[in-house]
Amino acid sequence: MDPRIRTHAETIVDHSTSIESGDDVVISMPAVAEDLAVALHELLGDRGANPVYLHNSERASRAFLRASDDDFETPAHQLALFEEADAFVIARGGPNVSEQGDVSPETNAAYRRAMRPVLDERLEKRWCLTQFPSSGHAQLAGMSTEAYENFVWDAVTLDWEAQREHQARMVEILDGANEVRIRSGDETDVTMSVAGNPTLNDYGEHNLPGGEVFTAPVKESVEGYVHFDLPLYRKGKEIEDARLRFEDGRVVGHSAERNEDVLTGILDTDEGARYLGELGIGMNRSIDQFTYNMLFDEKMGDTVHMAVGNAYADTVGEENERNESAEHVDMIVDMGEDSVIEVDGEVVQRNGTFVFEDGFE
Amino acid sequence: MDPRIRTHAETIVDHSTSIESGDDVVISMPAVAEDLAVALHELLGDRGANPVYLHNSERASRAFLRASDDDFETPAHQLALFEEADAFVIARGGPNVSEQGDVSPETNAAYRRAMRPVLDERLEKRWCLTQFPSSGHAQLAGMSTEAYENFVWDAVTLDWEAQREHQARMVEILDGANEVRIRSGDETDVTMSVAGNPTLNDYGEHNLPGGEVFTAPVKESVEGYVHFDLPLYRKGKEIEDARLRFEDGRVVGHSAERNEDVLTGILDTDEGARYLGELGIGMNRSIDQFTYNMLFDEKMGDTVHMAVGNAYADTVGEENERNESAEHVDMIVDMGEDSVIEVDGEVVQRNGTFVFEDGFE
Repeated sequence: MDPRIRTHAETIVDHSTSIESGDDVVISMPAVAEDLAVALHELLGDRGANPVYLHNSERASRAFLRASDDDFETPAHQLALFEEADAFVIARGGPNVSEQGDVSPETNAAYRRAMRPVLDERLEKRWCLTQFPSSGHAQLAGMSTEAYENFVWDAVTLDWEAQREHQARMVEILDGANEVRIRSGDETDVTMSVAGNPTLNDYGEHNLPGGEVFTAPVKESVEGYVHFDLPLYRKGKEIEDARLRFEDGRVVGHSAERNEDVLTGILDTDEGARYLGELGIGMNRSIDQFTYNMLFDEKMGDTVHMAVGNAYADTVGEENERNESAEHVDMIVDMGEDSVIEVDGEVVQRNGTFVFEDGFE
Repeated sequence: MDPRIRTHAETIVDHSTSIESGDDVVISMPAVAEDLAVALHELLGDRGANPVYLHNSERASRAFLRASDDDFETPAHQLALFEEADAFVIARGGPNVSEQGDVSPETNAAYRRAMRPVLDERLEKRWCLTQFPSSGHAQLAGMSTEAYENFVWDAVTLDWEAQREHQARMVEILDGANEVRIRSGDETDVTMSVAGNPTLNDYGEHNLPGGEVFTAPVKESVEGYVHFDLPLYRKGKEIEDARLRFEDGRVVGHSAERNEDVLTGILDTDEGARYLGELGIGMNRSIDQFTYNMLFDEKMGDTVHMAVGNAYADTVGEENERNESAEHVDMIVDMGEDSVIEVDGEVVQRNGTFVFEDGFE
């Protein structure tokens, strides 16, 4: 086994999810990530924690979804599993990122609605989403499998304490702020309130790699238009150049240059899918290339992202309404050129450089 | 996908576990059996049933068990999963049947004790144990992988209705009988009561392939000695020539020519592991070779098997005590030569041929 896999597992168990004796842990991994699952089992045994090992198989999910009639129910056994769990570790990675490319957006939306209680339960636990460097994601990134392994394992073994300190400066700016305005080129100019909503510092806990600060917009405060100029993969389909227009927080207009129907399916999942659940600012400069993988791309230093759908409970203050949805889909704006982030009228980032970084003008 | 895999899946879903709309199903498969899992997911989607897909990984189990300190607890999340499930499908098969060969018998026994409530819960459901024709089991059988595939898929797609009728004749003989005596060569002569205990006809439901009739001995009635002259694999170790001596139902003496410590570990799991939980008579003549795999070997036509440990609840009559244990380990006696089965003093099988078959003398 590559020794970096054991390091990866240690980071998950000790840093991301703080596993302790007696913890009931659910592990969900694709078959290709069996080495990582083995390393995790070894650590859980050592810590006195109890694993349940799910096979995260996109081939099986696709077969199930395509054969169904879209009349899904919440599976009581799966819900019970997560209700009784203390922690959840899920790895992405598989031989073919397009494996679910022929599942209809309507089916995916119906399934996510039925799975909503399971999703909510998972988010109540200590959880970590990570990546195994599989051939499918290497191909998506246009990299050899070995180069992609280096990329992934370098990214997950960052000095997370230093990263936490770097990001804390941006958390300070956003925490207690009122209005955030994001402008980029001619097609992005959006304002939103974050008043009363805490900003979280993601340094490799829920996401591994981490590297962003994020909060929830006040639900009905979002106004303006956004051109998400970086693409995203969603169930094996690339959505390019998504554009959203907001009034009173709600998406009232949308388009995409490619796979617009997939974007429509996302927005039609439920009413909450038409509101933003997250504003995130990428701050991980060790992720130095775009790999068509949101787990990494949204953390890149010169980007902001917004997610339609569910807001994380701990990013919503007690006075504010939490946006709830079965969806949570992140979309990215490249802030490298002709772009500014303003907080309460002050420019805090220009062309990707933060106010507290060298080179800010 | 080999079309026989879809046939295998159909047999599991429609014949073995009778899956219906709304059923919550747990599937547990090794990675190599992903095709079978995909075929099962397709059928569950079609039927309106809900899958949870566990990865049955011996590498992960081994890593967990070896790293632990043998102080196991029953995992609440796994128990909850099975409590809420309606059906359970588990496939054996992996690249290396010796994968757990370096886990100590004491660790295995301690783990099985902790998992006992989960095992009990599983047995309360509709369940099916089957085999995927993996390279590891092919090697164990001394067969090429392709020849082993043919062997497995021929065995699971038997005409189960005809098999049921064939076996029903032996069920008639045992149901309502009192004493069963089994003699083979000089080293096996054991008597036991089956009075009041129902005999079940296994035609491919809980076991796929099926092909036996079985009941539970009355717990304290077993007297005599048995030489299990066919070997068994247990957690990657071959136990050869196990010998057990019974008094008042209890194993009071045991030995094995090879891996006796594994046998000792089994018997020491708990008090119930020293009593028989099952008497089975193999009746599947389509399984025409010994493959060192109990799921097949115990069904062979010229054999009987006895299991130390847990008795299946539906093989124990209301008047009788059920033997309970975290273990259930089948061991086989070859009845092909110099052997008889007597029921209430009447010979019902001689040298492998039943009284209702051609060639009985």
